[in-house]
Amino acid sequence: MSTQDTYPIDVERIREDFPILDRKVGGDVSTAGEGSEDTEPLVYLDNGATSQTPKQVVDSIVDYYYGYNANVHRGIHQLSQEASVAYEEAHDRVAEFINANGREEIVFTKNTTEAMNLVAYAWGLAELGPGDSVVTTQMEHHASLVTWQQICKRTGAEIRFIEVDEEGRLDMDHAAELIDDSTEMVSLVHVSNTLGTVNPVAEITEMAHEVGAYSFVDGAQAVPTRPVDVEAIDADFYAFSGHKMLGPTGIGVLYGKEEILESMQPYLYGGDMIRKVTYEESTWEDLPWKFEAGTPSIAQAIALHAAIDYLEEIGMENVQAHEEMLAEYAYDRLTEYDDVTIYGPPGDDRGGLVAFNVDGVHAHDLSSILNDYAVAIRAGDHCTQPLHDTLGTAASARASFYIYNTREEIDKLVDAVDSARELFA
Amino acid sequence: MSTQDTYPIDVERIREDFPILDRKVGGDVSTAGEGSEDTEPLVYLDNGATSQTPKQVVDSIVDYYYGYNANVHRGIHQLSQEASVAYEEAHDRVAEFINANGREEIVFTKNTTEAMNLVAYAWGLAELGPGDSVVTTQMEHHASLVTWQQICKRTGAEIRFIEVDEEGRLDMDHAAELIDDSTEMVSLVHVSNTLGTVNPVAEITEMAHEVGAYSFVDGAQAVPTRPVDVEAIDADFYAFSGHKMLGPTGIGVLYGKEEILESMQPYLYGGDMIRKVTYEESTWEDLPWKFEAGTPSIAQAIALHAAIDYLEEIGMENVQAHEEMLAEYAYDRLTEYDDVTIYGPPGDDRGGLVAFNVDGVHAHDLSSILNDYAVAIRAGDHCTQPLHDTLGTAASARASFYIYNTREEIDKLVDAVDSARELFA
Repeated sequence: MSTQDTYPIDVERIREDFPILDRKVGGDVSTAGEGSEDTEPLVYLDNGATSQTPKQVVDSIVDYYYGYNANVHRGIHQLSQEASVAYEEAHDRVAEFINANGREEIVFTKNTTEAMNLVAYAWGLAELGPGDSVVTTQMEHHASLVTWQQICKRTGAEIRFIEVDEEGRLDMDHAAELIDDSTEMVSLVHVSNTLGTVNPVAEITEMAHEVGAYSFVDGAQAVPTRPVDVEAIDADFYAFSGHKMLGPTGIGVLYGKEEILESMQPYLYGGDMIRKVTYEESTWEDLPWKFEAGTPSIAQAIALHAAIDYLEEIGMENVQAHEEMLAEYAYDRLTEYDDVTIYGPPGDDRGGLVAFNVDGVHAHDLSSILNDYAVAIRAGDHCTQPLHDTLGTAASARASFYIYNTREEIDKLVDAVDSARELFA
Repeated sequence: MSTQDTYPIDVERIREDFPILDRKVGGDVSTAGEGSEDTEPLVYLDNGATSQTPKQVVDSIVDYYYGYNANVHRGIHQLSQEASVAYEEAHDRVAEFINANGREEIVFTKNTTEAMNLVAYAWGLAELGPGDSVVTTQMEHHASLVTWQQICKRTGAEIRFIEVDEEGRLDMDHAAELIDDSTEMVSLVHVSNTLGTVNPVAEITEMAHEVGAYSFVDGAQAVPTRPVDVEAIDADFYAFSGHKMLGPTGIGVLYGKEEILESMQPYLYGGDMIRKVTYEESTWEDLPWKFEAGTPSIAQAIALHAAIDYLEEIGMENVQAHEEMLAEYAYDRLTEYDDVTIYGPPGDDRGGLVAFNVDGVHAHDLSSILNDYAVAIRAGDHCTQPLHDTLGTAASARASFYIYNTREEIDKLVDAVDSARELFA
């Protein structure tokens, strides 16, 4: 049976590209909690934490190490030339993918977290001070929330949090209230990793610009799952990671408008980011190299290029349709149960994840039982502790979906939740 | 013919593990400078920039992505448990390799440069001020030199440079003069990436400690090429990169003494480095996680583990013997020519690299011609511009060796240099 007729994308064919999906895990339900026998096919629903990696991406890594592994921007020899071209083309590919103007606006970091810290250190420490405010939201990931919190502490700026309403959406009246003449930065998540909320980032960026503030959008959950156009959003900064979008660990992206990146001082100092160095003084290289000190994540940049090629072959509109279909299906199936609380907006208006709790079952216990059924979900605070406090729970279970997931896998999730409920009844 | 009898290590067998060494490059000497036909076997002598990657290391990456790819420290499910154990064991393996006390002292960064910036930001910005001094040397890599230069500018501390003598060694009298009661940090390179000098890092660390200063050792060229024992050196901080020691791009190591790392504020803020977060406050995770914010370079840490296994199978004493043998051979062969200037100490007392110039031939032109002979070397300032100014040249050619290199390859280098000389005569 082909999945082409029943899904927005050909899941069956896609799954063939992911060897890990043939793995067996868990499976010995009789020894639930005491280890497992690895007899059941993996049901991987932890894509919000990291996605799996197709052969095409892994092959690009192997091809690099076996074919043209060399340091970039430094060697005249052939391998270095080949590696440099591939590394620079990876910047171009990312720029094209999110509709940036060119490689000058694409800085490779090690992850989304470093991209945020880069802006907080290089822009925030220099520009923020007493009397200024940074506006963010109650649903931010620690990477954004803790970073701005600590930079505000250091600089004397005030941090403000846009409230989340009952349905898990930003209170836009509150946003309008908080974003005022003191505001220098509005930093918010595009798709919440806990609520699944898709935030009106263009609208909020416009509000930021009206008061002369910059906007920083955390796109870690958005870029992997939907078309993202930084020009349409008009974001001043936009960040995401390779490992959540079929790419490798060890690479993230900071997009920044060229004139803003140009005006900023460097962040990391070292080789490749300088133009001229004496014992007394240094001057800086052009963008994006000014922000890429030291030997970069060359293999990882090349693999990210391959991941983008893979995703665009499917089409980001189709990826989004698949995500939304699975999210709605999971939402509908889980709402069949009265004792399940789902956080965030309704099933037909959310990103591809569902965070929930079952009355009387701790999320960690639930995740542990599910593991015995070979269903991999995440349990915890998902790096949004303050949001969980606001939701009135310490932890939640989260199932997050990607291009290789099926409705049958969500059925397995729901069946396993059902079994866990009986265990704890 | 086995190489076991003629080299400290079995080069012939080792070369079988490196598929890239079968590559053909350059080779069409008749079109020197106009591109190449890829007919000659690669002679890779740019190991100081990056080393090549054996099958065992690439296999460890593939095994990870196809077998247990998952985010660490976050998931209860089996894949995440497996990835977490492997990621933590990578810390243990690195700790053991350099004789640190344990994983608490091993922070993974993206490269050596980030390790230096981490200390400069997290320790330097907090502790340095007017009246303090940072003592470093004339032979530092930009990663160290520019970082301390800029942090000193920001904090008002003074930066001082220990001079390099005629033979490319540190002037120890000058060191004794510069390291005084104002000194808070002494930062120096273990093995110079330009001169090949092996610095007395233990002795200088002792001088630092006598005045109550810390020492930071840049081991980027040392850890790949010789046994390094951080306890014997007594260094407070020690940094190196994976990609120069058979490992992948995208991972570096900061070693720090536990009590010092413990006393420092965090550097990057985000997930995994926090213990408790509210909208108002945050507290920090235990070492080393306090310094590892966001999704780390998981695959790269695991591959670094595999690289260390590979190196220790050979034995670091043997690696060092091989390096020194090749360096001496290259030094001796190049000194046959009167018009060749070699920088740094004599052939029998240096790390595994030789930087040189040929009278009347620019290093870049030399490198370009050598590329047509399939010999890959590096030409430029090797990220030591101020040292090159001191040496009285803008650039040099550098051949740097590793475990898979042979005397025959050095002969090819010397033959190619000879041909280049004739071209420019």
